[in-house]
Order: sequence, then C-alpha cells, then structure tokens
Amino acid sequence: MQQKPLYDRVALIGLGLIGSSLARAIRRKALAGHVAGHARSQQTRDQSMKLGFLDSVHASPEEAAEGADLIVLCTPLGAYDAVLERIAPVLAPGATVSDVGSCKASVAESFARHLPAGVHGIPGHPVAGTENSGPEAGFATLFEQRYCIVTPAPDTDPAALKRLIALWEGVGAMVEPMDAQHHDRVLAITSHLPHLIAYTIVGTASDLESQLKRERASENALVETREVIKYSAGGFRDFTRIAGSDPVMWRDVFTMNRDAVLEMLGRFQEDLVALQRAIRWGEGDKLEDWFTRTREVRRGVVEQGQAGRFYATEKDGED
Amino acid sequence: MQQKPLYDRVALIGLGLIGSSLARAIRRKALAGHVAGHARSQQTRDQSMKLGFLDSVHASPEEAAEGADLIVLCTPLGAYDAVLERIAPVLAPGATVSDVGSCKASVAESFARHLPAGVHGIPGHPVAGTENSGPEAGFATLFEQRYCIVTPAPDTDPAALKRLIALWEGVGAMVEPMDAQHHDRVLAITSHLPHLIAYTIVGTASDLESQLKRERASENALVETREVIKYSAGGFRDFTRIAGSDPVMWRDVFTMNRDAVLEMLGRFQEDLVALQRAIRWGEGDKLEDWFTRTREVRRGVVEQGQAGRFYATEKDGED
Repeated sequence: MQQKPLYDRVALIGLGLIGSSLARAIRRKALAGHVAGHARSQQTRDQSMKLGFLDSVHASPEEAAEGADLIVLCTPLGAYDAVLERIAPVLAPGATVSDVGSCKASVAESFARHLPAGVHGIPGHPVAGTENSGPEAGFATLFEQRYCIVTPAPDTDPAALKRLIALWEGVGAMVEPMDAQHHDRVLAITSHLPHLIAYTIVGTASDLESQLKRERASENALVETREVIKYSAGGFRDFTRIAGSDPVMWRDVFTMNRDAVLEMLGRFQEDLVALQRAIRWGEGDKLEDWFTRTREVRRGVVEQGQAGRFYATEKDGED
Repeated sequence: MQQKPLYDRVALIGLGLIGSSLARAIRRKALAGHVAGHARSQQTRDQSMKLGFLDSVHASPEEAAEGADLIVLCTPLGAYDAVLERIAPVLAPGATVSDVGSCKASVAESFARHLPAGVHGIPGHPVAGTENSGPEAGFATLFEQRYCIVTPAPDTDPAALKRLIALWEGVGAMVEPMDAQHHDRVLAITSHLPHLIAYTIVGTASDLESQLKRERASENALVETREVIKYSAGGFRDFTRIAGSDPVMWRDVFTMNRDAVLEMLGRFQEDLVALQRAIRWGEGDKLEDWFTRTREVRRGVVEQGQAGRFYATEKDGED
C-alpha cells in the first residue's frame, strides 16, 4: 500500500553535503511528493540535476520555495537572513521553515524576524556530517543512527513539529527536542570547540616550516610541512580531517555562537595551561590521572554507539 | 624455497598493542626462527600464549632476551632503564636492541648508558597504532603501509641497521632513518601535541557538568556529561578516540619529550589566542582565511595516502 508522503513539496535551499544528502534520503524513502532545490551557483545546480537527487532545480530561493509545505535552509548560517527575506513573500500559511545549521538561538531570532504569520519556523540540526563539501559529497544514509536536534519554541504548533520530526525519523535520525540556547552550549563543547582547536593546530603545524626557517633553526630542529603530512598517522591526521571542513560554514558558526564558544574555550585554556605546567614540572602522576579519566569518556562514547569506525588502511582490523 | 629467517630469536619485552602486533606480523611473515615474549603481568603472559602469537613466554625480561639476536622494547618509555639494566648481562655480542617508543633522543641515551660493547642499540618508532591497548588489541597488519622511523647513530653498524630495516619492511612498513632529536620535534607536532590537546578537551568536557552545577548554572546553561557523549558525532568523538590512548605510555611520552612538546604547545597557544580574538571581535575574514589554509594541509594528507577511512555507521559511504 502506497502511503501519502509527509510533505507535498520540500524545498531545499542550499545543495551541499547536508542539503544533497537530505534530498537523496527524502526521495529514497518517498517522504515528499516533490523535492525542489536551489543553489546559488549554476555549476552546483547543473551537478545536482546530473546526480539526480532533485525533482526540480531553481535559480532563485523563492522559486524553489513557492508552493512548498516544507522549506529547509541548508546554506551557511550567514546567508539565512538574505534567503529568508527573499522567500518570505512566497510562503503559504501552514508551511514550515526549518534548517540544518549548527547554531540554533540565532536561527530562532532570524525566523522570528522574517517569517510571516501562519508560517511555522522550527530550527533543526542533524548532528551528522563528513569533512567533504558539495552535492557530490552527499549520500542518502548520512542521517541514519545520528541524532537530529530540533529547537521548537514554547508556542510552536504541535502538528507542524510532529510532521517535521516524522521527516527526520523517516530518514533514519533519532530526533531530540531541545531549548535553542541549551543546544548552542552543548554543541559549543562537542563540536565548535573541537573544530576551532583542530583548525588551530593544523595551522600551527603548517606554519612551522617558514617560522623555523625565519628563526634560523638548525637542520635537526627544522620541521618541514612535508614531514608533518608524512607522519600524520600519529594523531595529527584526525585533526586534519576536522580542519578540512567547509571554511565559510565554520566562519559563520563561530560568529553566530560566539559567547558559548568563548566560554568553553576559556575553560579549555585553563586546563591546557594546567597540563602544560605538569609537563614542565615533570608531574607524571597528574598527567596519568588526567589521561585515565578521559579514557572513561571514550568508553561512554563507544557504549553509546557514537564512536564510528576508523581504518588506517584497507587491511586494518584483520588479524 | 624456504628462506632463512632474518633473526634466529626475537625477544619482545612488553606484549601490548604494539608488541603483540609485531609478534603476530613477524610470525606471519616467518621473519624469525623463534619469537619470545615477556610481560610483567601473569595475566598478559597467559593471554598471549592463549592468543598464540608467541613461541615462548617468560616471566622475566632477561629470560626472554637470553640468546636473542634481536630484542625489541615494547613497554612504556618509563620502564626502559629498568629493563635494560636487567637484560644487559645476558646480551650476546652482535645482538641488536631496538624499541618502538614515541620519543627517540631519550632512548638513544638509555641505550648508550646500559648496553654492553658489541651490542647494537638502534632506536625505532613505528608510526602506527590504535587507541586500544593490550595483547588482544594487536593485529598482524598494523604496520602495513605505515612509516617506521629508525634513528641510528653515526657510528651504528651498517649490517645491523640493514637487518633491522629488513624486519620492519618485512612486516609491511616503510622505513625512514632520521636523526633522533629531529624525530622528537616532528613527532611533537604530529603526535604528542595532538594527544595533549585531545586529552585536555575531553577532560574539560567531562568536568563541565560538575563545574556548572557548582556555578549554579541555569537549566538551559547546564551541559551534562551524558549530553556531551550523546552529541559527540559533531567532532568531539575524534578527540575521545585519541584521548582513549594508554595513560602510562602517554605520561612517559610527555615526560621524555618535554622540551619539544612545550615549544610546539607555545606556538599553538599563540595561534589559538589569535583565533579567539578574531572570534571575539567578529573578524570573519581572518577566520575564513585560516580555515581555507588548513584545508590544503588535509588535501596533502589525503594525497599522501595517510588519511585513513572513517565510518560513522556501518552504512556510511553508500549512496
């Protein structure tokens, strides 16, 4: 028996990793009668139609959004206000506008500022992704077994919320409603600060060669960028993966979630200086205690099924 | 045609992830006539014989080392001096002593201090591993397509060096000779600093709940440890993997490579404060420039075949 799709027309504004994955997943599970997409660049629009994950592609966000009962913003956060301004006039009463951005309090404000009465603005954030960007990087199973946080307001229409949750569950996600500001603090420590740190150390490492040359380091002291890359398997590799994430998206995240990121960064800095001091003074017990404690957190991540699997080579894991 | 093995008897002192993997690899490739092992704990010795990757197991390092033409230290660095003191009397002239530790200058000093004349001390470091520990965590292909750095002294016997290199190449590694102090600087940035940072942030995150409760944070501001674990897929997960590494091994690394780690940490701190300032002042261009530059480093890692493959779920990567 063919079920009626959840939405008649879903419009995805932005066709990068997340937007294109969502399109693929919605179509695979037949959750919408029509999936329309918009991307700013002609190249992305052409590529998206070639990849075949859309029913229609549009050169403007308002064309994609017209007649849609669900519009999902999948652009970097910094583009939201401009997009909302353009699509607001074509939004029909009863339509839902959501998004996939990594900060939620600023999105709730943008929705409140731009959406006409009768349109449901419900921010959302699938905690899923890879370091790759663009429509060709997406895949239909990206959201499976991953959490998707939605941040409804106290007065959000329950039926609209239920329908949006059903969509995310339909593509395999586990949906968790949460206060928007609380979301921003949780993500500041679990995602934004890790990205900032990874970006920092990868930059530090790639500057070493030129810095050390300027400091006239001896031959043995000079660390070249090609060596950093060559021996990255010792831990640095994992940071490069995170620091390979989309620059514009992450610029906007740090701008939009400034306060929570700076707070978590302050706490991190204090701890780092404490460990730095323990290294300088040779306080091995302090280091060992700290490192033993962090191992417990890893166990928690593994037990929650959020660990993922990492393979250094094609053959790793065999015996 | 059966080739003569490279060594008659290899003794592995320490049977954790690396020692047990090396034993498995040597036996699989028939690179030694006999693989003897020593572990301090009876449980590890029993487990190792049960797993079947040794020809003999010994309760003391000197019993394992007696008659061996290659002895490889696979214990945490802090145990080297005690082990070397015990095995020195049984070492035959012409034997080679090597190791797998993550620092090399301190090892060269320990070898010089303890090894009798006629015994070749050649430090080594396979840049390979996982966050798991113990003999059951090892596997025979751990070193395949991974770099192994050896740090011979200028007067190291060329034949002994050649034979050790052949062993590592025999288990699939790409061997690179390097100055010991240079090794310690390269690894400080590619491995030791990433581990320190990962340990730090995982500790910071796991302290949040109790800190925020003490600070009487409001309900929305309180970030609980279970939430940190639950939403770790946004980046934090990768840090927990690194911060799950063996606490004693890493305590010793930071103690033995103090100066290089503190230098790289100082550079990192400066960069982090610069990015912190850019976030506080909303300097989006600076952030975007930095994040764009780091993306290039990731490309280098991928092009060098050192990127590994990461799967968030069983199904990731399919379309």
